[in-house]
Amino acid sequence: MIAIRNQGGYGMSSDEEEAPRRHSIGAKRNPDTAEAIRAAALDILIEEGHAGFSIEKVARRARAGKPTIYRWWPSKAALLLDVYHRQKRDVEYPVTDDLESDLALFLTSLLRYWRDGPAGDIFRSIVAEAQSDPAAREALQDYIAERGKQVAGIISAPRNGPGLAPDFPPRIIAELVQSYAWMKLLIHSLDEPQENAGLAVRAILRGAMTVK
Amino acid sequence: MIAIRNQGGYGMSSDEEEAPRRHSIGAKRNPDTAEAIRAAALDILIEEGHAGFSIEKVARRARAGKPTIYRWWPSKAALLLDVYHRQKRDVEYPVTDDLESDLALFLTSLLRYWRDGPAGDIFRSIVAEAQSDPAAREALQDYIAERGKQVAGIISAPRNGPGLAPDFPPRIIAELVQSYAWMKLLIHSLDEPQENAGLAVRAILRGAMTVK
Repeated sequence: MIAIRNQGGYGMSSDEEEAPRRHSIGAKRNPDTAEAIRAAALDILIEEGHAGFSIEKVARRARAGKPTIYRWWPSKAALLLDVYHRQKRDVEYPVTDDLESDLALFLTSLLRYWRDGPAGDIFRSIVAEAQSDPAAREALQDYIAERGKQVAGIISAPRNGPGLAPDFPPRIIAELVQSYAWMKLLIHSLDEPQENAGLAVRAILRGAMTVK
Repeated sequence: MIAIRNQGGYGMSSDEEEAPRRHSIGAKRNPDTAEAIRAAALDILIEEGHAGFSIEKVARRARAGKPTIYRWWPSKAALLLDVYHRQKRDVEYPVTDDLESDLALFLTSLLRYWRDGPAGDIFRSIVAEAQSDPAAREALQDYIAERGKQVAGIISAPRNGPGLAPDFPPRIIAELVQSYAWMKLLIHSLDEPQENAGLAVRAILRGAMTVK
């Protein structure tokens, strides 16, 4: 798991870069510098996409030093995940008596969230980083398991109405829904009609097969 | 769409790099050089993974020039896709009277194919590249649509037995199965028990919901 150090760190401001590394106890990360670094990372990602993203550029834009950034975020992916986590997550996890519409609402709100703001681009970058950085991959695994639990929570919530059949682990059903969203993100098809997402959820819950 | 020029090109050998570009008609790509480049690309990917992969390294290893490589494969992704396409594709597309077992066999054979040889690593790299290279993204979209048609072919084949209900487009069902495999690939969970893939297919075809 990538350590995303939101607190602590060393209290170096951007103009202390060339000074020898200090390991004094009790020194605090400068919150303004940290926020400037996150903001710079987000801006670069929005303006230039993953192809143009580098820690060098973030450092330059935030007027911070690369060593400072790497001290607080050990990898590109750690910084991206931190920025992603801090996005206002506008995704719904509803629980009503209608499992199918709850899950469809989750899925369409996730697709919209990725499509309409910077979150989709950030998450794309994280997935790409995870293909070459083992620490990023572990962080992504943890993250997806955590989100999977939330989706499984929708699925296995008690309801007055049809629920998950006892022979299906909620995790697998959650993964099917998450996977579908991932593919749409990764091939840049987030603008498909909402009814496709509804059909996907309907297949998963009610089955796509007819009985002859 | 990335043009993967398997034929044609300019007949420059690796030591002609510094010569001015020739546009002579009828010059052929040297097949030995092309094959050496593909082999070098594959070796580097196997040995160093996506993180260590670069056209520079491929050029050095194949004793070819970077301009030669870029003339034949306009981007890193184009070379990766070409190498991927040339892997012996050990994936099954069965059509029997049992749709569920056909689709489960497709899915488990795809997961095994990605897990047991270099194909999984190559495809991971292509997906990662597609997040920063628009041409790679387009190539990936085309590729996935093409494979999706093959999977949809399994799904909508005529059968003596339950088939796809008429209200579901085969493409969406195919995408659900493909997406599930993608996520397992991208978070490096290809070694999960085979029964999970079976449960995923069962949910998609027969539904995961109980009727109260």
